Amino acid sequence: MTEKKERNEIEKLTERLREVTYLGTSIAVLQWDQEVNMPKKGANARATSISLLSGLVHQKFLAIDHDGLLSGLRKRLEDKKLVPSEAAIVRETWRSFSRARKLPETFVKEMAELTSRAQNVWAEARAENNFAKFAPYLERIVEKKREEAKLIGYEESPYDALLDSYEPDMTTVEIERIFTDLKTFLVPFIARLPVRCTQTGFRKVSNNKRSLVIAQGAIFPVEQQAEFSKRIAGAMGYDLEAGRIDASTHPFTTDFHPHDVRITTRYNPKNIFESIFPTMHEVGHALYGQGLPHEHFGTPLADAISLGIHESQSRLWENMVGKSLPFWKHWYPKLQKEFPGVFTLPLPSFYRSLNRVTPTLIRVEADEVTYNLHIIIRFELEKALIEGTIEVKDLPALWNERYQEYLGIIPTTDREGVLQDVHWSTGYIGYFPTYTLGNLYSAQFWNAAKKEIRGLEQKIAKGDLKTLREWLRKHIHRHGKLYSAENLALAVTGEKLNPDYFSAYIRAKYGPLYGLPTEA
Amino acid sequence: MTEKKERNEIEKLTERLREVTYLGTSIAVLQWDQEVNMPKKGANARATSISLLSGLVHQKFLAIDHDGLLSGLRKRLEDKKLVPSEAAIVRETWRSFSRARKLPETFVKEMAELTSRAQNVWAEARAENNFAKFAPYLERIVEKKREEAKLIGYEESPYDALLDSYEPDMTTVEIERIFTDLKTFLVPFIARLPVRCTQTGFRKVSNNKRSLVIAQGAIFPVEQQAEFSKRIAGAMGYDLEAGRIDASTHPFTTDFHPHDVRITTRYNPKNIFESIFPTMHEVGHALYGQGLPHEHFGTPLADAISLGIHESQSRLWENMVGKSLPFWKHWYPKLQKEFPGVFTLPLPSFYRSLNRVTPTLIRVEADEVTYNLHIIIRFELEKALIEGTIEVKDLPALWNERYQEYLGIIPTTDREGVLQDVHWSTGYIGYFPTYTLGNLYSAQFWNAAKKEIRGLEQKIAKGDLKTLREWLRKHIHRHGKLYSAENLALAVTGEKLNPDYFSAYIRAKYGPLYGLPTEA
Repeated sequence: MTEKKERNEIEKLTERLREVTYLGTSIAVLQWDQEVNMPKKGANARATSISLLSGLVHQKFLAIDHDGLLSGLRKRLEDKKLVPSEAAIVRETWRSFSRARKLPETFVKEMAELTSRAQNVWAEARAENNFAKFAPYLERIVEKKREEAKLIGYEESPYDALLDSYEPDMTTVEIERIFTDLKTFLVPFIARLPVRCTQTGFRKVSNNKRSLVIAQGAIFPVEQQAEFSKRIAGAMGYDLEAGRIDASTHPFTTDFHPHDVRITTRYNPKNIFESIFPTMHEVGHALYGQGLPHEHFGTPLADAISLGIHESQSRLWENMVGKSLPFWKHWYPKLQKEFPGVFTLPLPSFYRSLNRVTPTLIRVEADEVTYNLHIIIRFELEKALIEGTIEVKDLPALWNERYQEYLGIIPTTDREGVLQDVHWSTGYIGYFPTYTLGNLYSAQFWNAAKKEIRGLEQKIAKGDLKTLREWLRKHIHRHGKLYSAENLALAVTGEKLNPDYFSAYIRAKYGPLYGLPTEA
Repeated sequence: MTEKKERNEIEKLTERLREVTYLGTSIAVLQWDQEVNMPKKGANARATSISLLSGLVHQKFLAIDHDGLLSGLRKRLEDKKLVPSEAAIVRETWRSFSRARKLPETFVKEMAELTSRAQNVWAEARAENNFAKFAPYLERIVEKKREEAKLIGYEESPYDALLDSYEPDMTTVEIERIFTDLKTFLVPFIARLPVRCTQTGFRKVSNNKRSLVIAQGAIFPVEQQAEFSKRIAGAMGYDLEAGRIDASTHPFTTDFHPHDVRITTRYNPKNIFESIFPTMHEVGHALYGQGLPHEHFGTPLADAISLGIHESQSRLWENMVGKSLPFWKHWYPKLQKEFPGVFTLPLPSFYRSLNRVTPTLIRVEADEVTYNLHIIIRFELEKALIEGTIEVKDLPALWNERYQEYLGIIPTTDREGVLQDVHWSTGYIGYFPTYTLGNLYSAQFWNAAKKEIRGLEQKIAKGDLKTLREWLRKHIHRHGKLYSAENLALAVTGEKLNPDYFSAYIRAKYGPLYGLPTEA
């Protein structure tokens, strides 16, 4: 095989992949519309459209090897005959291909239809605080995910087979090891913090950060807070000619193409931070999406490495940047000016209040210290569901027990408990751990960025966020799936994933804030 | 063939059609998103997605007869062995099928991609008042539409082949006959009206209705006018749990399913009527969409008969209802209450001003009398383009000449002239005449409704719009394509299309308004 022939075959593969991807993004548009715009009664028809398209995409994807094109290239990969970018295309395409071909088209379509319907049922069940309404759907989803794990195959836990689609190369055992260490660090660390509790004691705590930071009775008109969040998004380098910001119950980011990456956020007229931080979080994701090399669209070179790496981008912006003192040095005066009389605390107290650590019930409202315990609970429960050691009907009770054990609080309703997240209704089981992986990676990348960008925090304090975006684009975004998560971490930070960066970050930030001894 | 077998075959066909339709509605979602939400840079990727999906839908549609299912049923149709609803399914499916199979998939995909891109170029060209920018795209579109006409085949004019896809069974000759009669009635009728002209004489007239009806300097906040239009939409019976209202440059209606029928409108802060009438117009369309029998979704029984019939629904609501005295008897006090001090004219003068007839440049702003002349101009020009007797480069000059001839006014810019409409950029050539057919049908249906619904105008004056909606649903919407346009008119009004109803309506309404003798 001549080099030229190889190049042609890669081009041929790219063309086929591109077609599949363009169809796939059509599904993403339907899903985005479903979350953002669709009228209630459109749900059933939409589920059918998504299901049919999912089946078609699956079919088209499997057809990329109908003449052995991919198999042939894979042989060349094994013989080490491909240059790194070609190797990445073939390696990662083969990974998805060999996974996809284990799933029959009927399975894919059923799953798409089931989850599209289940999302609406979940939304209703949550609104009505009625777990029983959602339970039969979740049972069917768990059943189908167990079936999926069987079809995919696994060595140790069926959970491995699910985890792998969100975080390639990661195993359940490894997650358990990391999470156990993290629990061992976090639970006593949180216990040492002088957590202020409500009068009802340690067991029921509502998130009352707001009252500390925002003057009582303040109202933030939705348009005005949207404008403010948009200014921050712009400063972060989010290109609004290649994106847009809408409102949805659960903020999310969706990529149709590097030139059309949309985020959603939410607006609480009483609390602008419920829009600022989700916006920064989603823009962190969106910068990854916009930073992928559009010339490789359709191939793994224009695809994110893993959800963990994706989440590292959102969390880096949301927490390391957005909840830092340098960031607010620049933005606090602007916020005060935009909303006169509302922010009366001096900057240091504002910063301290913003970073108050309190066990709370809602994951998305959790501070960056307690957040990972929310994830660990979800991981433990969904793993048990998939391994068949617990049942859906027992979830609410188990959820509440676990919250008491790890966070010392108990939800009074399932709405604030087991029904709070959309993930299970969408079939995203195996997804939650990537949130914590993201937190760990974000601390490790942040550490590297601070070392490499001279005066990074001073720049941020002056409102310059684009230097950081450029660094992330150069070191992470533009590579697509050229590296595995492990190799990316190695390339960017000189080390594989090392959770110590996260614990060091937490200690260094919260020790002084809470007056803990530095060796804590 | 037993009856049961036939029923089973119809069911099989229905299932196949449904699948194609669900995929087709995915394209409609992408197109809706393109108009309403898509960020600018997403245009190229979207064009590719739409093109690929269009190709797939085309493929899937042709495959419905892969085993001769449709051909077999068609034989049964010819032998008159089918009941009317089955006959309609087979007849109309065969009509689209035999059209579609004449178009190669590459042609369909190229056309979809070309027009998706052309729309963006047109929007830019219009904004920049730069016809030359759009011209090369329009040339390619005309060329491809001529190719389409050749592929489809025709007897007299290639325009027949295009017209047929929007208005089945209609011919160019018939349109010419109707339009000639209409011109013969309209041009002298308008000439007899005491049209008030601007100081620059009869040749340049701007639309200055506003100043007559709305107090000078009045501003209508977008949210407030949206709310008002929504109230009217609700009163008309538009189900907002199965629809939604957004803003777009050109108002339009799109049906994904009878349970998800969306309209767009526009908002001019200085003129609420630019939102009220487009909203009523689009809701008129949407009521047809929501009134189609969802249990037949995917088959011709849940599809609109023709664009002319569709337009009859929108125009009936916009003009016969929305610009009538009874309607405003109910709504004018509400409008006055909602916007205090803005509407000071007494109702009769308000009504007269609302119905002022003035030649204007912009089709969508035209009154119901001059409107059809806008259509006739477009028809004559696009027919000549398709027949190859004129060229794209000559359009601006020809456009302006024709405006002078029929309406006595000349656009000063192409933006107000030949660039004003989106249709040609989307490849909708053969579409314009259906607007006038809609006007003609609307007068004919309105006449029948007034005869059959006792006290219809009194009901409307009391705010009851739903009785009319029910009548339209019962007599028109719920039948889908059971009847042809001709047979529907026969069934509902006892006559085929009869343009005299329109001229009678215009005479009866505008004669008294302008103090003309009734025999005018």
